[in-house]
This record gives sequence, C-alpha cells and structure tokens, in this order.
Amino acid sequence: MSFKGRDVVSIREFSRQDIEHILDVAREMLPIAEGKKKSNMLGSHVLSTFFYEPSTRTRLSFQSAICRLGGRYIGFADPNVTSMKKGETLADTAKMAEAYSDAMVLRHPHEGSARLAAEFCSKPVINAGDGAGQHPTQTMLDLFTLREELGAIDGKTIAMVGDLKYGRTVHSLSYALAMFGAKLIFVAPKELQMPKEIIDRLNAQGAELKNTTKLDDAVKEASALYVTRIQKERFPDPNEYQRVAGTYQVNAELLKCADDKLIVMHPLPRVTEISPDVDATKHAMYFKQAFYGVPVRMALLALVLGEVD
Amino acid sequence: MSFKGRDVVSIREFSRQDIEHILDVAREMLPIAEGKKKSNMLGSHVLSTFFYEPSTRTRLSFQSAICRLGGRYIGFADPNVTSMKKGETLADTAKMAEAYSDAMVLRHPHEGSARLAAEFCSKPVINAGDGAGQHPTQTMLDLFTLREELGAIDGKTIAMVGDLKYGRTVHSLSYALAMFGAKLIFVAPKELQMPKEIIDRLNAQGAELKNTTKLDDAVKEASALYVTRIQKERFPDPNEYQRVAGTYQVNAELLKCADDKLIVMHPLPRVTEISPDVDATKHAMYFKQAFYGVPVRMALLALVLGEVD
Amino acid sequence: MSFKGRDVVSIREFSRQDIEHILDVAREMLPIAEGKKKSNMLGSHVLSTFFYEPSTRTRLSFQSAICRLGGRYIGFADPNVTSMKKGETLADTAKMAEAYSDAMVLRHPHEGSARLAAEFCSKPVINAGDGAGQHPTQTMLDLFTLREELGAIDGKTIAMVGDLKYGRTVHSLSYALAMFGAKLIFVAPKELQMPKEIIDRLNAQGAELKNTTKLDDAVKEASALYVTRIQKERFPDPNEYQRVAGTYQVNAELLKCADDKLIVMHPLPRVTEISPDVDATKHAMYFKQAFYGVPVRMALLALVLGEVD
Repeated sequence: MSFKGRDVVSIREFSRQDIEHILDVAREMLPIAEGKKKSNMLGSHVLSTFFYEPSTRTRLSFQSAICRLGGRYIGFADPNVTSMKKGETLADTAKMAEAYSDAMVLRHPHEGSARLAAEFCSKPVINAGDGAGQHPTQTMLDLFTLREELGAIDGKTIAMVGDLKYGRTVHSLSYALAMFGAKLIFVAPKELQMPKEIIDRLNAQGAELKNTTKLDDAVKEASALYVTRIQKERFPDPNEYQRVAGTYQVNAELLKCADDKLIVMHPLPRVTEISPDVDATKHAMYFKQAFYGVPVRMALLALVLGEVD
Repeated sequence: MSFKGRDVVSIREFSRQDIEHILDVAREMLPIAEGKKKSNMLGSHVLSTFFYEPSTRTRLSFQSAICRLGGRYIGFADPNVTSMKKGETLADTAKMAEAYSDAMVLRHPHEGSARLAAEFCSKPVINAGDGAGQHPTQTMLDLFTLREELGAIDGKTIAMVGDLKYGRTVHSLSYALAMFGAKLIFVAPKELQMPKEIIDRLNAQGAELKNTTKLDDAVKEASALYVTRIQKERFPDPNEYQRVAGTYQVNAELLKCADDKLIVMHPLPRVTEISPDVDATKHAMYFKQAFYGVPVRMALLALVLGEVD
Repeated sequence: MSFKGRDVVSIREFSRQDIEHILDVAREMLPIAEGKKKSNMLGSHVLSTFFYEPSTRTRLSFQSAICRLGGRYIGFADPNVTSMKKGETLADTAKMAEAYSDAMVLRHPHEGSARLAAEFCSKPVINAGDGAGQHPTQTMLDLFTLREELGAIDGKTIAMVGDLKYGRTVHSLSYALAMFGAKLIFVAPKELQMPKEIIDRLNAQGAELKNTTKLDDAVKEASALYVTRIQKERFPDPNEYQRVAGTYQVNAELLKCADDKLIVMHPLPRVTEISPDVDATKHAMYFKQAFYGVPVRMALLALVLGEVD
C-alpha cells in the first residue's frame, strides 16, 4: 500500500486500513503542527492551492501544513485573479498545476471538479471540496479528532445534528463512521433529515442507526455531537427557520445532562448553532478539531508526495 | 522583561525601556533586512497575516520580515475570500490563527478588534491597525527612523504636519515622542488641529508643545517634519480642501530654508502632500522610513516568538 | 557580461549572446524545476510579485521559480488590495518593492510601466507584461521551448497563427526569432495581419518572411506552429468572428498533413483556437512550453540576483 502519487478525490476510495495509516502518520506530525518540533520533510516541494470559492480554514490549514514541513505554496484564493475569466477550462488549469508544482489542492463549486482535474493533472490532486460532492480531508480530520479524543471509534455513539439533508460533510462522515464501527444517531428537523439513499447505503454497510428529532435524547446517549449549520436559505418561511435554529442550538444549559466526556464537534465556521457559552466548557472540541486539520493534511501531503511510506 | 508570547495591541502598553529594547534588536536585524546577511532564526515559524482592509505596506513588510528570518506566512489580503461573509465572528477567526500559526498580525477597520482577537487567540497578536484605534508597529518604526537618523530623540524638535485631528498615526506618535523627551510642534489648519484631549494628556506627560498654522516657521525650527495626508473627505467644500492642501504641501522650495539635516517623514502612501521634487533632496526620509518597517517588524516577531530575548 | 542587478524590461535590450546564456542556465535548472533536485540557491531572497491585472500563469510560474530555488515571495494578484486606490503612484510602489525585497516582477495594464518602475526601483525589475508593450520572459521561454524541442532555431521555419496585429507576444517573438536566424510564416486573416512597421523592421533585420492567409499551407512547411488567441472583441460582426475563428482553429484533422516532428505552441490560456483533440497528439507542446516558463524564470532570477554568473 503506497500512497505516493495517489489522488485524494473521495473518501470512498480509501479503505479503513488506508485511513488508519493516514491517521497514524498524522499523530506523528502533531509536535510539528504545534510548532514544537522543526521539520524540513517537504523542503523542496511546491504545493498548488487553487481555490475557486472562499474557504479560509481549508485553504489556510493546507498552507500551514506544507509550511510546517518546510515546503512552499503557490495559488489563488479568488477565481477573479485567474484565467477562468478568459474562458480557460479546468482541465487546462490542472495542467498548469502539474507544470508548476508537485501536488494540487482544489476547491471548486461544481461536483466532479476534482475527479476531472485528477484526470488531467499527472501530479496528485487533493479534493478540498467540490460543491455538493466530496471533501475527504474534512472527513479524515473528523475521524482523527474522534480517535484522538475518544480513544477509539469502534462501538462509540456519534450523534449528527442539524442539516443532514444538504450537509456534504455529514454524508461522507456517516459512511466513514459506519466503516469504523460507530453507532449513529441522526438528529434533524423533518425538513432536513438524512436522505433515504444515504440511509439505505448505511444499512447495506450494516451500520447501527437511529433517527430522532429530539436533540436532548441524543445528548444523553452520545459520546460525540457533530453539529452542522442550518442554512436560512433552506426555509421559505423565516419564522420557521428561527424556530428550527432555536430548537437545534447546542448551548451550555443543554449540555448539563450530557456525559462528562461528551465532545462537541463542528466543521466550522459556525454561526448560531453552537452558543458561545459552550466554548468555555470541557465539551468544546471544535477549535481543536480545526487544529487537527493541520497534522492530518501534513500526513496526506507527506504520503502522496512520497516522503513517508 | 521577556517579550515571549506578548501581544502588541497598543503603544501605551510599552515602556520606554521596552521600546528601546525593540529598537536595539531592530538595529541588529538591519543587515538581514537589507539582504546582506542570511538568517534562519524563525525557520520553523508560520505567521498569520489577516488583513480585513487593504494595507499594502504594512502587510508586505510583515511578510518580508518573517521571510527574511526564514519563516513563512499564511493569510488573506481581502476579507471577501474569508468566512466573514458566512457570519463568522472575529473571535472564531482568532482561534483559527491560533490553530494554524505561531502569531497573528491583524488589520481590521474597527477599533478594539486587536484587543478582542488577543483575548481569544492564545498566540501573540500584533495589531496592524484597527480603524481609528492603534497601529503600534507604525509608531515603533517611526521612532526607529528618528533614532537612527537623528542619533537620538531626546531634546529634538519634531514637527507634525497635516491632519492632526483624525490622524491615528500622529496621536500615538506624539504620545511616544513625549515619553522619549522630544519637543513637539503641531502644524495644522484650524479644521484639523490636534484634539484637546490629546493636548491635555501630552501636557500631563510634561511634554513641550507648540501649536501653529504656519508651516514655514516649523520647517526652520524642526529636526524632523512628520507629514500626514489631508483627506478630501474631511472638507465639505472642495475649494477649501484645495486651498488647505496647497498651503500644507511640503516641496523643495519650502525646504530651502530648512536646516541641512532636517529629515522629512511620512507613513505613506502619499498623494500630493509631499511634492515629488522633495524625493531627490537629502531631506527625503520617507522611503527609508518604510524600509525600516522591516527590521522593526523582524525584531518584534523574533521577540514575541521567543527567538531572541 | 554580468546580469547581476540588471532590469529585464524589453527583449530588445538582450543580445543573442545574452539570451543564449540565459537559456543555457535555464537548461541547468531543469531538474530543479521538475522537483528532481533540491536547491537553496536563492534561499535568503525575497521576490516582489506585483500584479496589477490577472495573469495566473506568469505569476505562478515566477512564484514557483523562486520557491524551487529556496526563496520566498510577497506581493499581490489584485490591485484592489493595494494603495493604488488611495492614489499612490507606480513610482512610489516601486520604491516599496525596493525596500521590502530583492527584485520586483511587475505586471501592469499600461505600456511603459515596467520602464518607469525600473527608473525608481534600485533593485532589478522584471517586466511580466505591460499592456500592449513587452513581455520579455514569455519570449525567452518560447525560444527555450524551440531550442530544446527542435534542437536549434537557426534555419527552422516557424509559423505564427492567429491575431498577429494586436498580439504583443508574436511581435516580440518574431523579432527574436529573426535574430536567431529562423524563417517566419505569418498566417492571419486580413483583419489581423502583422503590422507594416513590424514587417519593415524584420526586413531591415534581414529576416526571411512569408505572409499567407492559408493555415494548411503553413502546417505542411513549418517545424513549429505558434498559435495565438483571436479575440472576439476585435470583430464588430460576431458572425465574422465565428467564421475567422473556425478557419484558423488548429485541430487533429488539420495536423494529419504535418511533419511528424511539428510542434504546436501557444502562450496560453487558449480557448477554441486549439482543439482539445490536439492535446493527445505528439504535436502538442503548449503544456510543456508553460512548464519551461519555470526553469527560464529560475535562470533569470538567479542571474539578476547575482547567484549565478
């Protein structure tokens, strides 16, 4: 199992063994990510970070990852400074990343973009989110957080809260968690429940699932709450949005009935779905989760660039 | 007196001894800033440069500073590529800088932003200008310029020219100059004179002050002219703006009556307040002053990151 | 012949011997540009990349070039994040690049900008395109591609196709090719033929020239096709544009009658002027040509920064 030269387009292309290896390497990266240990492992490497839509956390954590390992990055954070305006295709842009760098990190609003780029770019392509499609490194850092903070994933109960219908993050993550043997609770308003085709697939995987609309039940039972943003735009009626957003907000009061070791996660940015009063509790894990994006992306870069096995 | 881990939010939090130490370290940085000497002092460090409004000079000189010392930077120059649009708070963005880097340089249009970010980010936060508030590294590089070019600041006469009412730069600088024992001349049109509360505070500091509306008197007396931009927007009547801008323009003709060693400073960018015919005179110090921003920021970064004492 | 400190404003300031030396150095850079060999040749250097208009390929290849040699870059890709809006002159911006870095790469919409910047900036200024003016590093990488791929330039027949009237690239390149002893075929619709003053100058150089409107004739005769974009905006009548664009499109069918070794070049980005079905043929050289921008720019940077002779 060599990762050298491999594309990272979808979490589905990675076996449990693959992912565990990535997370093992990520753990070794921790002291470097924290700035406590120096490294020049990717010292001669250049990374392309091509972001066709804003995504501060993903972009900056990839850039931090290559920098912490002694490498450098080139790219753009805004498609308006690129040749896209002149009508250049994504395929030609992918050839540019191939010519100027050792790997390409791509964020694009259209599903399938990363797959297409990977076909044209002979260097490794890492999908940093392609619209309604995949965001595999987010799933990997979520798994890393759970493994580090809960000690294991097998047999743990993870509750996913919020917009489970449109939330790309929770679809990929639920697939991966099932593969790792976790039990899943889906907590969502009727309008935003997990799509039937995803439920069917999880059942086919043999996953242990539960659906509920009640957040407090889930809080009592879970080892981790994975909260996602409920977007205003999903609701034709603004009052209905207000009601739902209020019902599914995680706050310090709600967490009083939780297990002492419950961790609260969120892919960030958050708006109102987690109250700031949670930040000071021992449950808040979302900032550390964001930090874990750095060692996980360091591990992936080092692996696909062939600098670790 | 250790600087390691310290925030740099306001010049008022730094004693004269503190600032002199920073300027001493900055002097040692000079050959590295000039590209004459190599350094890898900050070789394993990553700096966040988060700029919520355009500021080329400040941004690029911080980035040059970290690069000259072997480090790397991540960040943005335009808030439109960030999660601010999705409603993320500055507090959460500060936690992101904490997770991905070793220190945060923040430019923000709102006063108090740097203080707020420093509360949430456990890594050092450096204020690179927060609206009508503070811009402490500008003050430090102004002091460095004066000390290097005049030999000392004590007992020297510094004339500040232009918009003294709204100019954030001159408020902080006049406070610091008084602390260093300089004499101050304030040269401004009636509409833009130094606010009374600042004058009162300077008097309480025991500063030697003089107010005038006449630029040529000040030119004869001063060791340094510190010129600032007069903004059109301050004048309801465009003709009045034209008249004032003309009266307070520094040009080669005006400088004929100046002392040979008079230096002319400006925080830049300038528009018409210093005529280009001054550039070729021995008085022009503003470009070198801009350069001095690099060694001063190198010193600060090295100090707060704990790589020099 | 030392390059140290030299500005790179126009290809006309470089003798054939100069250019050949640059291309020789570029060849030595190839394994570093490919990521096969590490280098820290420009390890202590900071490059300013100031781009006043979008130009992904040129910007990223300069940044890749400095990174591959261990250096770092600062700058902007979008003038909206700069002080230009506050009314700062290009001359003052050039002084900023001088203060914060070791060399300045400038892209600007106005002809003559690079010359002006070079007058004010004491560090080397490299023109990365100034409107209708020059783009000398593009010409150098075009020459490098021809020399590497055809073995030599002397005596070879190069056909230039497309917009020869407004295309800055082809004007500079035809001058340089004539200097290198190539034969030139100009293939363009009547509306977009090579301007008379350029033809006159080439004749004065003693160049061997041919004009035609027929693409297939040129294909049979040439060792290289240099294709450029025909811009819609040049045609008042959109139907006329469609007809012309169709007639001068290079596609796989057309290339069936070409010599086996014919190479097809393009400065990129392309839109429809080269059909994607050419990409898979042995003739397609435009992606490799784009890659060659990296070693050529590495060579130039190393030369003007005085790190190679």
